[in-house]
Amino acid sequence: MTTVLKLGGSVVTAKDSPETVATERLERAAEAVGAAHGRDATAADPDADIDPADLVVVHGGGSFGHPAAERHGVTTSAGTRDAAAVREVHGAMRALNRTVVGALAAADVPAVQVAPLSTGFRVEERFHQPADAVAALLAEGFVPVLHGDVVATAGAGATVVSGDELVTALAEGLDADRVGLCSDVPGVLDADGTVIDRIERFEDAADALGESEATDVTGGMAAKVRTLLALDTPASVFDLDGLPAFLTGRSPGTRIASDGRVP
Amino acid sequence: MTTVLKLGGSVVTAKDSPETVATERLERAAEAVGAAHGRDATAADPDADIDPADLVVVHGGGSFGHPAAERHGVTTSAGTRDAAAVREVHGAMRALNRTVVGALAAADVPAVQVAPLSTGFRVEERFHQPADAVAALLAEGFVPVLHGDVVATAGAGATVVSGDELVTALAEGLDADRVGLCSDVPGVLDADGTVIDRIERFEDAADALGESEATDVTGGMAAKVRTLLALDTPASVFDLDGLPAFLTGRSPGTRIASDGRVP
Repeated sequence: MTTVLKLGGSVVTAKDSPETVATERLERAAEAVGAAHGRDATAADPDADIDPADLVVVHGGGSFGHPAAERHGVTTSAGTRDAAAVREVHGAMRALNRTVVGALAAADVPAVQVAPLSTGFRVEERFHQPADAVAALLAEGFVPVLHGDVVATAGAGATVVSGDELVTALAEGLDADRVGLCSDVPGVLDADGTVIDRIERFEDAADALGESEATDVTGGMAAKVRTLLALDTPASVFDLDGLPAFLTGRSPGTRIASDGRVP
Repeated sequence: MTTVLKLGGSVVTAKDSPETVATERLERAAEAVGAAHGRDATAADPDADIDPADLVVVHGGGSFGHPAAERHGVTTSAGTRDAAAVREVHGAMRALNRTVVGALAAADVPAVQVAPLSTGFRVEERFHQPADAVAALLAEGFVPVLHGDVVATAGAGATVVSGDELVTALAEGLDADRVGLCSDVPGVLDADGTVIDRIERFEDAADALGESEATDVTGGMAAKVRTLLALDTPASVFDLDGLPAFLTGRSPGTRIASDGRVP
């Protein structure tokens, strides 16, 4: 059972304050992951070769990556050839990543840092990430923790890769069983502010989907829903209150899984 | 023309003092790289798609990686399943890598950080590193800077990957034209302390090859020579005095290239 969990930038950072970690929320998330991972590890069949608790964590940039990217005019489609800009965006994201990994480690999660700049690249708008190193880390019982980043992009220097793109690439590359997106909303909301229980086609939620309000060069909820519908892996969108339920196998918030019909 | 340059741990760190950068030597090395890279970039045909100055830099661990690895009993063959040990060795190497990249950046080299833990893995003693991201960075004009690291290792948790293993993997993966190893000796020395001009078979230097004296979990000169002889790419071993000559296309120190005969 391989799970890809994204902790949104709005969970791990204070999105409106530059380079500010949301310490309390990050600790809550780390403790939920630690409790679930510890329980799964204990329940594992000692004779089994494969850990049933394979977990990859991806986190967004929030107030670390986005302001630096915006300052240099770098998005998922507009690149930069300025190595200093690449180093600045990457450095901000790595600093956040060290903090996230540290919080997970404090909750007894065997977390290790994995940098998309080191392993991924983009060609004709599509992000590619060889999954070998992440799969090897999982097989050895580690929890790889990736982050939104900048990556080399054919003909354009370097562009941003979003946490959502990483989730998609990892879910496909690892043939994951479950995807969870933990953000600051309890699910995808309809026009009345009620959580939509299940989305099987974009039209199920099109009217309600706007864009997120804070600076987010990588797209809001509409982009997330489109991305998740394109996956073979079922996904759930939930907030911190829903995280423990997701990690124990339930489907809190909104479950997004294509019904297979052409949209 | 793709060049893989290794700056040994003895060049960039004070090997006998824990976590100490050899600032003056690092700056000298960075200035040599900056001068050569700037000249190559200026000489490049503006209509050509490929930069003639493709350069990948790898650096060793010196007093950053080795003490932490030794403390946890991790070598290129003895692994650890302790995520805290992985984080500690990786963290020490990343800190050194940030400093090396910073020095290169100060010398106008478009350097960016690349972490082997994020992209490589080891199976049955052999280190594998998909070269896609590094190749994509090179194609966009960046200078990827890698470092000795820990990597996931099938059946053993995580093991050390040495700078020399990285040089080999990159030379093969990128089909490099030249390899340079810049260390604290002017070349491979014979029994009288004279630089051996050329080594085509291990026997050419076997008598003279000992092990390096300081803590080095990844092997000394004998291991380097064996590794380089196994490469299709010609290599040079030199010290800081030889670096400018190497970067301008000459073969300072000892040139190591197999004559093709079975040893």
